[in-house]
Amino acid sequence: MFALVLLSASAFATQQAAPVAIAIHGGAGTLKAADLTDDLKAAYLSKMTDALRTGHDILRSGGASVDAVVATVEVLEQSPLFNAGIGAVMTFEGKHELDASLMSGADLQAGAVSGVTTVGSPIRLAHTVMLQSPHVMLAGPGAEGFARSIGMPAVDNTSFTTPRRAEQLQRVKERINARISARTDLEQRVPPHKWGTVGAVALDRDGNLAAATSTGGMTAKRWGRVGDSPIIGAGTFADNRSCAVSATGHGEYFIRFNVAADICARVRYRQATIGEAAQQVLFDELLPVGGTGGVIVINPRGDIVMPFNTPGMYRGAIDTDGNLQLGIFKQSEEQ
Amino acid sequence: MFALVLLSASAFATQQAAPVAIAIHGGAGTLKAADLTDDLKAAYLSKMTDALRTGHDILRSGGASVDAVVATVEVLEQSPLFNAGIGAVMTFEGKHELDASLMSGADLQAGAVSGVTTVGSPIRLAHTVMLQSPHVMLAGPGAEGFARSIGMPAVDNTSFTTPRRAEQLQRVKERINARISARTDLEQRVPPHKWGTVGAVALDRDGNLAAATSTGGMTAKRWGRVGDSPIIGAGTFADNRSCAVSATGHGEYFIRFNVAADICARVRYRQATIGEAAQQVLFDELLPVGGTGGVIVINPRGDIVMPFNTPGMYRGAIDTDGNLQLGIFKQSEEQ
Repeated sequence: MFALVLLSASAFATQQAAPVAIAIHGGAGTLKAADLTDDLKAAYLSKMTDALRTGHDILRSGGASVDAVVATVEVLEQSPLFNAGIGAVMTFEGKHELDASLMSGADLQAGAVSGVTTVGSPIRLAHTVMLQSPHVMLAGPGAEGFARSIGMPAVDNTSFTTPRRAEQLQRVKERINARISARTDLEQRVPPHKWGTVGAVALDRDGNLAAATSTGGMTAKRWGRVGDSPIIGAGTFADNRSCAVSATGHGEYFIRFNVAADICARVRYRQATIGEAAQQVLFDELLPVGGTGGVIVINPRGDIVMPFNTPGMYRGAIDTDGNLQLGIFKQSEEQ
Repeated sequence: MFALVLLSASAFATQQAAPVAIAIHGGAGTLKAADLTDDLKAAYLSKMTDALRTGHDILRSGGASVDAVVATVEVLEQSPLFNAGIGAVMTFEGKHELDASLMSGADLQAGAVSGVTTVGSPIRLAHTVMLQSPHVMLAGPGAEGFARSIGMPAVDNTSFTTPRRAEQLQRVKERINARISARTDLEQRVPPHKWGTVGAVALDRDGNLAAATSTGGMTAKRWGRVGDSPIIGAGTFADNRSCAVSATGHGEYFIRFNVAADICARVRYRQATIGEAAQQVLFDELLPVGGTGGVIVINPRGDIVMPFNTPGMYRGAIDTDGNLQLGIFKQSEEQ
């Protein structure tokens, strides 16, 4: 009798528990399937699974969506596979300048850092800016000073370097003629190497959405270039009244078209579904002018879409039924 | 007969000329009318008139709205009365870190710089970033490097200093207990001193909108704090399909609420008037959570609104009929 009661209570609790869901991306771009070895592909799928499970465990145990997206993005930052934290691309000067941002859909609180060079987890620093400062965005050496003031240890900038990124920089620099003027130099720059920006969006049991994004930016970037990843409204946006979005792609277009916030605005003001809104922005606004990339989007029901207008986007989700889905190219990968 | 024909042609040309209009702000805040001497008030009204006429002359002679807002904002940057360029507020360390951005409504091109310290006109540099680089946003020392690479001379950081701003910093620093922890320090900071961010929005004869914003940020700011002024979507946005907006106020709120782009989204997706959209964002979204400030907005018909949820906002406009209007407190000033 007792056992029966307990079972019923348990079944009841499972039925009643509000849904949780999470999605991630690891960058969008033009990688060809043929260039991805089986080993490397397996490594990507495995790390994406780790990241998703890290966040999903937090959500399942009643944790906040903000904490879930931060922990998830940190797993991706610590992997050399992605262009964020360890494995970040290198600047023209051979260093790493890292950007990250996050946003809470319940109260529109947000935190962002740009151009940090000695912070082990940029997304953790962005989270701390949100929690412990009256500011939303801190940049450069000032942001490092803030990190030190709250006791975050300095890591050596070279700790982010991987052989692959050093080779990429070398290849890109060889294609830049150092003697031409700044303007021509910029115009002749090879197409941006920006596969690998990472991000996460999540819905927690309290019905709150969150989004987080972290990146090393563009290979051989110069002049303190800031892309969309640390810009609230461009690379990251979350509002419980519409959706949460993390973007990856050619950052300049994503800033100009206010991509993350525009998707949420179409949901909020036009009653578009997240699928319609994301398609419209990626294919009707961005693609005609050459803006390439993708987004992950979640709404308060836990629906998830992960569209992109590039040949591929590293992506994955655990939906409200607990089903894991991973993808790199147009079709989903079996897992 | 000839004279008659010429007169008719002239009248016809005047009638047919597409409308032009321009609006500016010089910051919003809590200044009391009693604190503003007659002399100082006259100086503000005179400089705002200069700035408006500079932009309006460009528009009237068929110039582009982007050129008009840049020239207008530069007049305000060069005046010690406003918190931008000369007269910019000082950081905690007693320096000036300047931010600016602009956007073209015809093609959603944009340019932005943040944390520049040796650039005479931050809005000119933002304009050059838009025209001569493939990037939208450059920050800090990198942005200075870009300025040098295109031949922009370095100015001494002290050239922006005015006695009033040095006194303001002294007062603010006296109220910050240097011995408390970083967190408490931040929380106990006195209300932001941020009167004086400047901006302009304009409509040109081709029907193109533009917006521009420039600021020194917040007195005693630290840690490379970035406010809304250099953030496309937050402090500046322009889209011919809706409107152009330049904002001023407590920057953190304006970033989180994506203020400039949200006003445009409500116009585009909800068919709100610019007056309705700006009122909704300032009074329904920002004010309930303590977000104070104001915006100037123009639409493709040349309608202008300049609402604020603070006691005052330096503001002015020349409308499509050529009428000049100026204001500081709730009611417009006679000119």
